[in-house]
Amino acid sequence: MAQGTNSISSTVRIGICAPSTPFTQEGADRVQALATKEFPQAELIFSDQCFFEQGHFAGSDKQRTDSFVSMANDASMDAIWFARGGYGAARITDVAISQLNEVAKHKIYLGYSDAGNLLGALYRAGIGEVTHGPMPSDIGRSGGDEAIRRSLDWIVHRRRKALEPGLSNQEKYAAFNLMTLSMMTGTDFMPNLRDHILIVEEISEYLYAFDRAMFHLCSNLTDQGLSGIQLGDVSDVPENDRPFGETAEDITKRWCNKNGIAYLGRAEIGHNVDNKIVPFGTLKV
Amino acid sequence: MAQGTNSISSTVRIGICAPSTPFTQEGADRVQALATKEFPQAELIFSDQCFFEQGHFAGSDKQRTDSFVSMANDASMDAIWFARGGYGAARITDVAISQLNEVAKHKIYLGYSDAGNLLGALYRAGIGEVTHGPMPSDIGRSGGDEAIRRSLDWIVHRRRKALEPGLSNQEKYAAFNLMTLSMMTGTDFMPNLRDHILIVEEISEYLYAFDRAMFHLCSNLTDQGLSGIQLGDVSDVPENDRPFGETAEDITKRWCNKNGIAYLGRAEIGHNVDNKIVPFGTLKV
Repeated sequence: MAQGTNSISSTVRIGICAPSTPFTQEGADRVQALATKEFPQAELIFSDQCFFEQGHFAGSDKQRTDSFVSMANDASMDAIWFARGGYGAARITDVAISQLNEVAKHKIYLGYSDAGNLLGALYRAGIGEVTHGPMPSDIGRSGGDEAIRRSLDWIVHRRRKALEPGLSNQEKYAAFNLMTLSMMTGTDFMPNLRDHILIVEEISEYLYAFDRAMFHLCSNLTDQGLSGIQLGDVSDVPENDRPFGETAEDITKRWCNKNGIAYLGRAEIGHNVDNKIVPFGTLKV
Repeated sequence: MAQGTNSISSTVRIGICAPSTPFTQEGADRVQALATKEFPQAELIFSDQCFFEQGHFAGSDKQRTDSFVSMANDASMDAIWFARGGYGAARITDVAISQLNEVAKHKIYLGYSDAGNLLGALYRAGIGEVTHGPMPSDIGRSGGDEAIRRSLDWIVHRRRKALEPGLSNQEKYAAFNLMTLSMMTGTDFMPNLRDHILIVEEISEYLYAFDRAMFHLCSNLTDQGLSGIQLGDVSDVPENDRPFGETAEDITKRWCNKNGIAYLGRAEIGHNVDNKIVPFGTLKV
């Protein structure tokens, strides 16, 4: 099913692992219930590792690596769905990617936020259909069913309505959390974004930190042949002791302009239930 | 006096500007009072711009640039002392550096935290005696007099007791706030740290964000010929919803080890009154 026919008869097996922080059994049950009811073709396989806890993380670096690698290298899995972000994927991405086999190239990888480390490195390595979109943990948001439904709509049916509305078949895309991508620049996880429209979103950062991360990212992407930057949602901005004096869009425009990067307007990705699907590279539907 | 004789008869003129966020007149008065009493050779010149306010910043980008450049290019100034960090130097550093003249090469530049953007770019450009140490804003800390005294001891008398205790004449050094330096990698502000001992400190970051920044920095510095990393203070770490599971030193050792960088132990720099002086490059006293 990784090639995305709309057949109702064959099962789509979706492996769910947690490269960053732990998911909850209660959340997994809710996602499972929704899938059972609305996506009977989908078989969700939650790795036990999703519920492991070791300090900040969903198990040790090795447990998180092994869980991801075993599912990615499993030919019976059509998709890998990252359960939740938080932080932790950066600690396992290089080892994990080095352990992937041929089988891993033929599946969807779906997630966002901290999972961007894996998305970026997979895309750089040309492995699979790398896709930015809602994760099982989004079930915890008010109206989160809609986000879960959107990801399953994409994995199971390749429904265009799940996609970021403005996507064009004539362009290449990549989508990331700003801070996550900012911290990937210059590392082995950073994909080549030449000729890509880059969509970024942010959550829970002061505007001064957003400005700093945008300085860093745009300075690193100057002269890299980017087609442009679109700005997703910038949410849960903490109150500082005084107003910053510019909006997140002002900041984005300024750093784009300073670095000769086209600013291409807003997009509907973000840490919210409206987070749309963005397949990396050229759209194939 | 920029050559640092211990003469008591000649005046050392110290220009103070704010490339990031505003200082207060009350704080300036306290620093001035301490200097008048204990460092009669020092003449402190606070730029009016230190007290400007525009949104987050101590005046507009142009006002902050002009204030710094006019003092740096003023042959009557022996030192430039950055008033305060916060965020904002990254927005002016490239334009500011491009406007510096020959005169700017012959003075001390002293500060830390967000001022690291200017310190890094100045050091990269070979301009002046770039120095990491306390700023006038440290007067606001409990016991802050000692921090102010230390910086003036260095600028006016080049007293060795003001220095980070472990400094060797056989090594080169650089010191930065971790997040500030992390966001400088790959930009035009990033100095070449080959053969340097890099000392980093951090404040007000969750340990997961510290881990992420250390991943980013060490990944970018791998194979760059760094002599090693020393860890300064890591203070005011916010409480997360669960313990991270490692200390800041554990994190530093792990990323150093992973990237083939020597971990060289602790150092006495940080956002606190014990913040010692670290001149960049080879120690000349």
